[in-house]
This record gives sequence, C-alpha cells and structure tokens, in this order.
Amino acid sequence: MITIPRSVIPRLSVYFRVLLSYEESAVISSERLSALTGHTAAQIRRDLAYFGQFGTRGKGYSVSGLKKEIPGILGIDRPLRVAIVGAGNLGMALLSYRGFREQGFSIVAAFDNDQRKIGGRFRDVVIQDIAELAAAVRTKKIEMAVVAVPAAAAATAITALIRARVGAILNFAPVRLQVPSTVELINIDLSIELEKLAHFLRRTDRHREPIAGSSGGPHAKRKR
Amino acid sequence: MITIPRSVIPRLSVYFRVLLSYEESAVISSERLSALTGHTAAQIRRDLAYFGQFGTRGKGYSVSGLKKEIPGILGIDRPLRVAIVGAGNLGMALLSYRGFREQGFSIVAAFDNDQRKIGGRFRDVVIQDIAELAAAVRTKKIEMAVVAVPAAAAATAITALIRARVGAILNFAPVRLQVPSTVELINIDLSIELEKLAHFLRRTDRHREPIAGSSGGPHAKRKR
Repeated sequence: MITIPRSVIPRLSVYFRVLLSYEESAVISSERLSALTGHTAAQIRRDLAYFGQFGTRGKGYSVSGLKKEIPGILGIDRPLRVAIVGAGNLGMALLSYRGFREQGFSIVAAFDNDQRKIGGRFRDVVIQDIAELAAAVRTKKIEMAVVAVPAAAAATAITALIRARVGAILNFAPVRLQVPSTVELINIDLSIELEKLAHFLRRTDRHREPIAGSSGGPHAKRKR
Repeated sequence: MITIPRSVIPRLSVYFRVLLSYEESAVISSERLSALTGHTAAQIRRDLAYFGQFGTRGKGYSVSGLKKEIPGILGIDRPLRVAIVGAGNLGMALLSYRGFREQGFSIVAAFDNDQRKIGGRFRDVVIQDIAELAAAVRTKKIEMAVVAVPAAAAATAITALIRARVGAILNFAPVRLQVPSTVELINIDLSIELEKLAHFLRRTDRHREPIAGSSGGPHAKRKR
C-alpha cells in the first residue's frame, strides 16, 4: 500500500486533472507537467517517485500508469456518496456543479430546514428535512457532506453530521468549528479570500498613490 | 500607516466577523476571541498588538476600536467594485451570495459568452457580453473579479481581466495560471478540496478495516 505525505495530495489532484486530457498511450515528461501545472519539474519527479518506476529517464511518465494509480491514492477510484446540507443559492449551485460528477462524487441527498424547500427536487435528488439527516446517512450510506448553510446554522449542521458519523465535511459557512480528529473538516471561507484580495488592492493602491495626510501610526485613518 | 504581515490578514478577517455580533461599547478578551475563532489567545494578542494600545491588560480589547481599525487594513472600509465572469450556476450563486454585500463588496457587472444569457438580469446587474469586458472595467471602475467559467475558458477570461487592469481575481475554474506580480490571483479549486476529503476517507477507512490481499508495494490495488 502506498503511503504518501498529505502535502502531496493537492498536487496529485492537479497532475491528475492534466492527465485526463492525454491519451492512455501517451508519455508525459516532468517538464511538460511543470509547464501545465506551475509546479517545478523537480517537485513533480519527487511526487511521482512515490509510485515507483513509472518514469523512464529522459522520456517521461506513462499516462496510463499514472491514471491507474493516482485515483486509488486520492480515494476517487470508486464513487463517493455526498450530501449537500443547505439548499440555498450556493447549495443549489453545488448540487448542479458538474465537477462533482466528473470526479466521481455522487450527490445522493440534499437537506434544508425550510419547509418551502423540502420536497423540492433537483435532478434525482429530493430535498429532505434536515431532521431526517441521521436516518438518511445510514440508508443512503453518505460518506461526505458539503455544508452550505448560513453561519448561524452551521454549528448545528456540522454537529448533526458528525453524530451521524459522516467523516469528511466541506464547509462553506463562515464559521470555524473544532471537530474530532476522526473527522476531516475543510473550510472554504469566501469572505476571507475576498478580504485577502481587498487587502492586496489596498496595499498596491497605497503604493501607487500615497495619500496626503496619512501620517502613520496606528490611529492614522485613510480618507477617500 | 500600519503595515501588517500578510499572514495575519486571514485571521483579522475572522476576528472581524466575530466582532460584528458585539455591541460597540463592549470589551472582548483574547480568551473569548480564542474560544470563538479557534486561534490561540497568544496568537490573537500578537496579531492585535499591531494596532497599538487597544488592549487593556486583564480586561480586553475595545470592540469599537477594533471595528474602526480592521476594515481599513482589510481594505473594506469603502465598497469594492466587483465583476463576475461566467454566469453559469456558480456565477449566479455568487451573484446572489449575500456575504458579498454584507462585507462591502458591490457586484457591479457580470459577463458571459453565451448569447442566451447575455442581456439577462439579476437584481440590478445585466449580464454583458464578455467582449465588452475591457470597456466595462473602465466605465464601471471594476477593481476585482470573480471567475466562474469552465476550465477551458478560464485562461482567456483571466488574460482579458489582467489586460483590462483588474488587479485582484478570485478564480473558481480548476486551472493554475501564472500571473504578473501586480495581480493577486487566488484560486479556489473545489476539485482539490474534494479530493483531499476523499483521500482522508480512504486513509481512515483503510485504518478501520484492513483489506485482505493488499500486500503493499506500489502496484497493490485495493479491491472493493
């Protein structure tokens, strides 16, 4: 069984995506993969060395070999059963996000607490009452959940998922929760990303046109 | 003018979000902020020390003081003008995402290349032809863009934004592009996050029920 450091996993995802557009019979060099992914060729060779002898020095890697091995490491060599919690705009967008299906994730359930949404249908998924979560996790063998509820509802949703023994959660609600080490919780906080961008603009902006009257010190306020 | 290391910015976003639910007159301790954010109290004290003397030893920080200073650092003390590129499911979800407005981002434009979508309206935003991007960036003073197009269209969209001098881009398309240092590009790759979760499930799964016949070595394949 191949054991690969966790830090390598996101890069494997990227390599795998690139490989999908190559023929099975093709051979790809670390330099080509580097040009397509932005990771250095040396990094790519180190990462792919975990798989043993796929590389032929001076030629490259067997595309079919990598395509066979990487999904097993990523855990996507069989469809994973996913639930969406929260059927608002973001939840519905995720429900219809083609990337899920393409990568072998099947969305098998969706939940909301809004009576007007419960019973609604999206493709083959009927939106269920969040109260039915634990039962549905059992009967539908849900392994993973995407949380797309408002901040105020997130703690309840995530706690319910953990109690129902869902082991992997992708959380879009802008809250940070501590979870047991048996659960993997990944937070995607759009607010934080937006504020990083805003900060960058502010910084570069300042650089371009220094503001008169900004005298420095913690209480100087920028006017504009 | 306060200069704050970039690594501190995402934490400031989190503190700021917590502070929003506090009264102006309140005082909040680093321990309380720690409980609410998951960052250690020592980390919080170091981060907030950049702002000078808001803290009173043994009492805490003035909520009104922090609420006054943090937005300037984050660059959200004036509305930022944002465009959405790609009016598919994800683009439309982002267009209606309340978090943008709440945090002072105004979505002033949306673009697509699909004639059936162009001219459509969402609240006060009319979807424009992507060909009009450069002109719209000028007239609408667009500073930031969110890219929510398919992978195949992402390079074109991002190149057009950079040419139009949009300085900050949040990219949801699963591609990695090299951009000039004058541009801040943040990639949110849902595929990679999903695959991290899948890998975690696979790993813990293995741990729970070792598979007979999995003999180790790079070519051992797991069957189920």
